[in-house]
Amino acid sequence: MAGSRVEDHPSYQKLLEIMGTLEDLGGALALLNWDQSVNMPQAAAAERARQRATLARFIHEMATSDQVLGLLQELASQVDLDSLEDAPSMIRVALRDVEKRRKLPAEFVARKAEAVGIAQTHWEQAKQAKDFSLFRDDLKRIVELAIEEAELLGYEEDPYDALLDNYEPETRTADVERVFRELRDELVPMIRAIGERPQVDDSFLYLAYDRKKQWDFGIEMLKAIGFDLERGRQDYSAHPFTIGISGSDVRITTFAADDLKPALFATLHEGGHGIHDQGTPARYRRTVLGGPPGLGICESQSRLFENVIGRSKLFWSHHYPRLQEYFPEQLGGVDLDRFYKAINKVEPSLIRVEADELTYHLHIIIRFELERALIHGKLRVDQLPEAWDAKMEEYLGIRPPDPSQGVLQDTHWAIGAIGYFPTYSLGSLLASHWYQLAVTERPEVEEELAQGRCDALRAWLEERVYSYGRKLSPPKLVEAVTGGPITPRPFLEYARAKFGEIYGF
Amino acid sequence: MAGSRVEDHPSYQKLLEIMGTLEDLGGALALLNWDQSVNMPQAAAAERARQRATLARFIHEMATSDQVLGLLQELASQVDLDSLEDAPSMIRVALRDVEKRRKLPAEFVARKAEAVGIAQTHWEQAKQAKDFSLFRDDLKRIVELAIEEAELLGYEEDPYDALLDNYEPETRTADVERVFRELRDELVPMIRAIGERPQVDDSFLYLAYDRKKQWDFGIEMLKAIGFDLERGRQDYSAHPFTIGISGSDVRITTFAADDLKPALFATLHEGGHGIHDQGTPARYRRTVLGGPPGLGICESQSRLFENVIGRSKLFWSHHYPRLQEYFPEQLGGVDLDRFYKAINKVEPSLIRVEADELTYHLHIIIRFELERALIHGKLRVDQLPEAWDAKMEEYLGIRPPDPSQGVLQDTHWAIGAIGYFPTYSLGSLLASHWYQLAVTERPEVEEELAQGRCDALRAWLEERVYSYGRKLSPPKLVEAVTGGPITPRPFLEYARAKFGEIYGF
Repeated sequence: MAGSRVEDHPSYQKLLEIMGTLEDLGGALALLNWDQSVNMPQAAAAERARQRATLARFIHEMATSDQVLGLLQELASQVDLDSLEDAPSMIRVALRDVEKRRKLPAEFVARKAEAVGIAQTHWEQAKQAKDFSLFRDDLKRIVELAIEEAELLGYEEDPYDALLDNYEPETRTADVERVFRELRDELVPMIRAIGERPQVDDSFLYLAYDRKKQWDFGIEMLKAIGFDLERGRQDYSAHPFTIGISGSDVRITTFAADDLKPALFATLHEGGHGIHDQGTPARYRRTVLGGPPGLGICESQSRLFENVIGRSKLFWSHHYPRLQEYFPEQLGGVDLDRFYKAINKVEPSLIRVEADELTYHLHIIIRFELERALIHGKLRVDQLPEAWDAKMEEYLGIRPPDPSQGVLQDTHWAIGAIGYFPTYSLGSLLASHWYQLAVTERPEVEEELAQGRCDALRAWLEERVYSYGRKLSPPKLVEAVTGGPITPRPFLEYARAKFGEIYGF
Repeated sequence: MAGSRVEDHPSYQKLLEIMGTLEDLGGALALLNWDQSVNMPQAAAAERARQRATLARFIHEMATSDQVLGLLQELASQVDLDSLEDAPSMIRVALRDVEKRRKLPAEFVARKAEAVGIAQTHWEQAKQAKDFSLFRDDLKRIVELAIEEAELLGYEEDPYDALLDNYEPETRTADVERVFRELRDELVPMIRAIGERPQVDDSFLYLAYDRKKQWDFGIEMLKAIGFDLERGRQDYSAHPFTIGISGSDVRITTFAADDLKPALFATLHEGGHGIHDQGTPARYRRTVLGGPPGLGICESQSRLFENVIGRSKLFWSHHYPRLQEYFPEQLGGVDLDRFYKAINKVEPSLIRVEADELTYHLHIIIRFELERALIHGKLRVDQLPEAWDAKMEEYLGIRPPDPSQGVLQDTHWAIGAIGYFPTYSLGSLLASHWYQLAVTERPEVEEELAQGRCDALRAWLEERVYSYGRKLSPPKLVEAVTGGPITPRPFLEYARAKFGEIYGF
């Protein structure tokens, strides 16, 4: 490329302009979403849905236009597409995005949107009535649509690959299967062993904790882990989430609840997502490189701060006395060790989002196995409730008393998201791996943590993970950072050490 | 039109679809604006400005496209454009909008936007430094741009007509001048007469009033006047405003202040705007008929609830005991009569936004006279500060000690808004006229007010004013409701009765 930098090409300038416009519209759409969960009067729901649909349509039409495709193809011919420099990376990633999006005809997208719209309503009714049959036909349609989508998108080995790629690009089902098998084979006996040990007492977490004080302590924790409240904010919502409105405006939400765990760990979880967003290099903003490479990578950041940091003894050795100051009545008589054990209690339970660090993975593995069986035609939707219950029995030793606490508990299938669940576990596994590497490469990470701070950890993450933006797909990013493919080993070592100590096995 | 309803025409359906899309994008833009004032981290200001500019550009391009113009011209030829039916009205109003917007070339719009962007920064610096010279050259440019804009837009008699039309469509400068002369000629001696009477005591309004209690009482007042909090919300912001995100999502903001007046009267003022938005017929939503016909009509609603209702003895005869319950320390020893007089204190002062019901008009008349002189080339920007001070002396008998309390106090000129100010006074005059008519036509309005409610008044407004949406321009709406052109007589009668009683003249 000597003598002719692609950065100086008028088409590249045009590309930057279009990417900027798309990011501006995306920011407006993000704000419509955020506001709907945080502020909007319920009466405006239908009007808001139309506003969101209109903006999404503009974005889709612009992002998949012949103009954009032509521009990218022209530019692609002029750069080394394997280069990790900014310009070739932007072209490579944008080209992949538009080629993928153009594989789905508008007719299919509209048909899926309509099916999903109805399915959500039926799913809510079914969950309310604890009656799977009210959702069954919708789910059948959604599975059929997922199979159709996989065929439209294309795949080499497994149709599930195409679906997984929507959430964790370039990740292969076979690799996930290998990782999950190893994980399951160690976790099932580990959880069983824990079940045979005396259980820890966590009853004091379920007393009434003043919400305003919880909020104030949560803000202190956000500052401690390094979420920048000058370039973001926290609010309440029914379901916590993180959303970037723009580079300097990253918003997280948390629960309003009386017991201690929901808001505290939601704040640490979403705070981790927020730190990731805020740590992405400023020069990627308003380009396709500014987002995360995949949902598993996102989740690795939230789980790192929620679990690896936020459920560690080191972190609480510094912050627990402060928490006791906020809540002397509830925690004055509870020492650090009891508190630490309580927030790490392991116990098979029915609901994924309430599960502990270990059993959580089995919830995910069950969903992954069932999704694949459905997509491969090895399981019919009619058989799903019984298959769900049987796997819960097999892996966790418990059976849901009704489908609202079993197969109907999650919204993902109702919104047409098949292939999403595995990213939760992949993220948790990576969180442990990042931490293991960070501590090895920078011993000051743990010294700081003992003082309640995470600056060195964040600096490591910024340098080794966030600096790539979306330049590398998740598998390539894992390879670049860890030197190999994703593995459950660091997590399993962490789990064995931590829970072995807590439960004495 | 017998046998061929325009509503069934494919082009009309297309028009509705485009109007709906424009309203959706407008709602997203409104949310970006609202959020910037209420929630946004300051660090995101530049990014937000770009997001707003991008959305505004999409809206402008779509609204002024050849496609839309062609569609409207085709439809216009098929209806009676003078009809007040919905379909012909939509076509008439949309055609007027697009023809007007297309008169300003993109080059001019961009040039004005750039000049205004710089001018705002310089105006802030000038106001801060109390030095008009730092803003002088910008204002010269803005006056030149306003003259150029008037020529581009076109006018029959007076270039100021074209500017006024931006804010109060089809309103003639000559009519405003006639109304303002009559107003000024009665107000100047009235205010002088008041100045010779013993002044009322309002010192108790400036004690410390708990902000949370102020908020709670404000919410009670919003419910009393009929702002629907199920289809809207109130928040704090530095400068109160009202904004419609969608038909069922109308948002107002108020001040956070220690003394009693700012938040209370901002809530009543913005609540009035909000009632207007919420009272517009649902079938106009997502069409050009859904907005207000002009800013003066808007202001007539806010001033009605802030002043005519919110500073009336009837209203407070019901609500004052409740206010005393909230603030026994500050108001326990103040009877209704003293409170009523205090909130109606008349006294010449320097700052428009803090002025009372009577002197307020003279602040506006001064600006109107100076703007016209600038546009007509009868006054140079260099001479403006002295001309300002001289008029303040002449009409109100006081001189600003520095330009930040004089010619630099308002942001309007810095944002390029020349022709805006008169709408404030026109609105206040209309507020009195609406009320006079409503009470005459429905005696229960005052009976209800004495019980603290405004249902009959709102019903009258919905039927007689809001029902037109934007079908009628402000002068035609005034004609339709009052049977004649706008007149200051009802306001002057109201003022003479009210302030004659308070001050005993």
